[in-house]
Amino acid sequence: MRHDHTIHRHCHHNAWDNSLEPVLSIAPGKSVYFEVVDSSGGQLSPKSTTKDVPKLDFSNVNPVTGPVYIEGAKPGDTLEVEIESFGMQSWGWTAIIPGFGLLNDYFADPYLKIWDLKNNQSAEFLHGIEIPTNPFPGTIGVALPEPGQHSVVPPRKNGGNMDIRHLTKGTKLYLPVWVDGALFSVGDTHAAQGDGEVCGTAIEAPIDLQLRFKLHKGMQIQEPQFTTAPGPLTPGLDRKGYHATTGYGENLMDATRKSIMYMIEYLTSNYGITDQEAYALCSVAVDLKISEVVDIPHYLVSAFLPLNIFK
Amino acid sequence: MRHDHTIHRHCHHNAWDNSLEPVLSIAPGKSVYFEVVDSSGGQLSPKSTTKDVPKLDFSNVNPVTGPVYIEGAKPGDTLEVEIESFGMQSWGWTAIIPGFGLLNDYFADPYLKIWDLKNNQSAEFLHGIEIPTNPFPGTIGVALPEPGQHSVVPPRKNGGNMDIRHLTKGTKLYLPVWVDGALFSVGDTHAAQGDGEVCGTAIEAPIDLQLRFKLHKGMQIQEPQFTTAPGPLTPGLDRKGYHATTGYGENLMDATRKSIMYMIEYLTSNYGITDQEAYALCSVAVDLKISEVVDIPHYLVSAFLPLNIFK
Repeated sequence: MRHDHTIHRHCHHNAWDNSLEPVLSIAPGKSVYFEVVDSSGGQLSPKSTTKDVPKLDFSNVNPVTGPVYIEGAKPGDTLEVEIESFGMQSWGWTAIIPGFGLLNDYFADPYLKIWDLKNNQSAEFLHGIEIPTNPFPGTIGVALPEPGQHSVVPPRKNGGNMDIRHLTKGTKLYLPVWVDGALFSVGDTHAAQGDGEVCGTAIEAPIDLQLRFKLHKGMQIQEPQFTTAPGPLTPGLDRKGYHATTGYGENLMDATRKSIMYMIEYLTSNYGITDQEAYALCSVAVDLKISEVVDIPHYLVSAFLPLNIFK
Repeated sequence: MRHDHTIHRHCHHNAWDNSLEPVLSIAPGKSVYFEVVDSSGGQLSPKSTTKDVPKLDFSNVNPVTGPVYIEGAKPGDTLEVEIESFGMQSWGWTAIIPGFGLLNDYFADPYLKIWDLKNNQSAEFLHGIEIPTNPFPGTIGVALPEPGQHSVVPPRKNGGNMDIRHLTKGTKLYLPVWVDGALFSVGDTHAAQGDGEVCGTAIEAPIDLQLRFKLHKGMQIQEPQFTTAPGPLTPGLDRKGYHATTGYGENLMDATRKSIMYMIEYLTSNYGITDQEAYALCSVAVDLKISEVVDIPHYLVSAFLPLNIFK
């Protein structure tokens, strides 16, 4: 399918702000091709090393391309965004950034992995460990009704940095409209990620994408929803089954942290990789599921490692 | 595969207690067939109605069959339990029990659904809504090292009421051994459940099961782990894709609760079912995934509804 418009990568912004001038205005039904900048905002490159990680300027991270004005969109409507296709991927990065991530109290040192994504199907993490790629936008949303600049880092009722790995090709995302024209933007594309994105970064990669917009007048939702394409959610990962670690806790965060700590132990013991490599591997490939959230006073979270990544 | 021993359903207990006399002692490598009582402890039957739910005596719920003494098992070892097969299923129940469940502040009234499970493949929830069944034990574990009686309701480092829906046929569960002989017990079988078991009950059903035990001497784990059989985790559910609702929050519990409240709204609006039916349907069929647990100050949980349940 052809697109109707292209927005180039220099048209990006680093905060949600409903006073931004739209870079494009379209009628519902149109398809737009978005060029995107990677989530470092161009601060990292295929030649970067671990030494570059602490130098990252957080005021320039997570740029999003846009905003696009959707004609006729009003507060109380819902904007449907169909994820039609992705452009080529060439390289990516995964970092452990000091002070950021689920276990930042345990991982004080920076780490950087540069990925070669040229084969467009999978990417080698280490010799014998291959991650199937299935791109999605980490950050996708519309302007907030509250005035001023709002950090792009946390997700909110406008979507934003949701990091939902299932927003892959064929998925339809539904976003509540909060301002006239919706003011849609997208960026922070990932080549692969586990549910949770535990170290704080996925396979961060600049991957252009094509989106088609529809407007549902008067259909009101409070936060984003989405419908995936028919078929399994993790098709390239299921073949060999999963090894899972569990953690229980009086709150879901304790349970989550334990499940990942046990998974890191499992990976380092069984595959001879370092703690940092294991933590990064969890972030790009391990899925967090809430097994039970009712058996008071203890909830249980499970971390699922797809065994198909080991060749 | 044949089993070596059978434990009958009258050999059950309602608390973890390392002073209980084993009902069987076996060498590692043996397979045992367990008859189980449903999680109401026989208090509900196919003829029960909603009026019976508030009468449930919680001191008799969640009986587990056992304990089995595994010869040679010592603290610091790991017990492997292979889930070999399940017996026939005939009926089951799902209840909303006042004071229990993720949204018990919103659902004050009792509810009961009695399921016909005789076709052994799927079960009708309401006309046009069919849940594929794939049985697993909700409660499976070993004795705790601490003396005395410990409620069977919360999961702990001994496993127990983990309600992990992926402990299906072919899965190998690894349990840390805390006392001599491990003292293994199992019960609380479910015919189907979503990740989370949000209303507090699954399709609760008495389903006998056959388990094979292996002992890993000196292999030490802190909490249970498991390895699933090769292939997808949710084979009967994936065909039509999923509709997902998302919730963000400053803690994972808020995010989880919102994702389920939005899913209940979605189900009642789109499928004409009641709030109670939607909540129960979430419990037996909707999967909770932690989408991101790093984009401070907001985490995001997604609730996935398999569209294949709608005929």
